[in-house]
Parts: sequence; structure tokens; C-alpha cells
Amino acid sequence: MATSGWRVTGIHHVAFAHADPEAPARIATTLGLTCVATEAAPGFTERMLAAGDDRLQLLEATGEGVVQRFVERRGAALHHVAFSVDDLDTALEELRNQGTRLIDERARAGGDGTRIAFLHPAACAGLLVELVDAASAGARR
Amino acid sequence: MATSGWRVTGIHHVAFAHADPEAPARIATTLGLTCVATEAAPGFTERMLAAGDDRLQLLEATGEGVVQRFVERRGAALHHVAFSVDDLDTALEELRNQGTRLIDERARAGGDGTRIAFLHPAACAGLLVELVDAASAGARR
Repeated sequence: MATSGWRVTGIHHVAFAHADPEAPARIATTLGLTCVATEAAPGFTERMLAAGDDRLQLLEATGEGVVQRFVERRGAALHHVAFSVDDLDTALEELRNQGTRLIDERARAGGDGTRIAFLHPAACAGLLVELVDAASAGARR
Repeated sequence: MATSGWRVTGIHHVAFAHADPEAPARIATTLGLTCVATEAAPGFTERMLAAGDDRLQLLEATGEGVVQRFVERRGAALHHVAFSVDDLDTALEELRNQGTRLIDERARAGGDGTRIAFLHPAACAGLLVELVDAASAGARR
């Protein structure tokens, strides 16, 4: 199952899910990070804190949905890790052909204009992985 | 509480805790990642998978200790995020002076020859943060 036509080029972001509206300010202040993007989505608000060229993504539960269910079950906790890949469509084609379980069989729109897809946690032993198309992530990678 | 004499320069690694001995191979194979370092510690084995210049750290519980307790409570899950900082000693001095709760009041030895310190999760709204001295992390940052 070695990858051939694509490769991971780095960590794009790490996501932390929470319900506390004061968490973003607390984290940003303690670590000296700046919020560079905020987007409202159904049931949650997504914020990106810049850590150099990398990003800490904060997912604040604002209503019913996957983030709220996660926080109810686990409390505030790290939610997923997103890797940049050099060719997302080839990655998904190879993963599908290998029978890897995917949440998103095809690339879809993510935050901040990116093209993304989530693997099913079973594909990585319980680790929830998002793949981000590096080209769509702009000049950061 | 803005930082002044130090800054976060990037994400150094993200750590995933697990008990399944087959998890490292499954994750590495699915994502095409290579294990570049393995270190045994009391109660756990630490592996580093290279994701470009970034690292996914896998913490496998092998006996009693913090990793095993985490996995018993949460199952296989993301454990912490480690940020590179340009001046770890200054960071810790400022954080101490600000009254920020720290697990490690002073820098200590981490894996792979690094100098590190953990903040108390309360300092970042429940997010467990490790700071890694960028100079000690070698040429990767």
C-alpha cells in the first residue's frame, strides 16, 4: 500500500475542538499567536492561529453538529491532524483503489479556499486525518 | 500577556497516543510516511514519522505510565501539539513571571536530543502544549 503518485509534504494544521468561547483568546495570548482567519460553519466556528507558516485550527462548537458531539464525548481535545499533499486527487484515487476507508471519496471545499478530504479514522488506527491539496493552500506550502 | 522576548516559529510535531502495536505500520503505510526515529521510554515507545520537515509522533503505551493512563481514559487519540520556539529559556521565564501554569518549570531533555518543556493544559484551555527549543531541534526548523 505504499504511495506512489502522491506524497505528504508536511503538516498543514492541527485542530483543537472546544466549546469555551474564551479558549481562542487564552491560547493566542499564552503562546503569542495571531488569529489569521475566522469562518462560521453550521454548528461551529473555525479559527486559524498562525504558528509561523503552520496553523493551529480551533473548532468552537456553536450548535448541534460533529464538533459539539465530539466535545460532549471527549471534552476540549485535539480533533484531527491535516497533512499537505502534493496531489490530492491522485492520493484519493490511490487510496480508493487500495480499499482505504474514506469519509470524503472526492475532494471537497475546506476552509480558507482549500481543497480537502478526510480519511476515515479506521484508515489510520483511530487517528482522524485530513488531506489538504498543497496547491490550494497557496504560498504557505 | 503578549510574548515579547520569544516567539513560536512553527509546529514541531503532533503526538498520537495508542496501545495497538500495529498502529505505526498502518499509519505509515496509509500515508506513505517513514519512521525516522524510535526511542524507548519508561512505559511507552516514541516513534517519529516524517511528514516533509514536520513530524507525527506516535506514543505507544508499553506499560504503566502517562501514555497508558491517557489511552485507557480516551482510547487512541491525539495527545499534544509541540511548537518550536526560538528561545525556550526566555519563553519559560516569561511564562513563569506571568503566572502561567507549567508542567516543566525549566527546560528538560526531550526525544531526539531536543530541549523541551510542557505547559499545563489549563494554560491553553485544555490543550496540552509542548514547547521545543528550535536550536536543539537541529536544521529542521
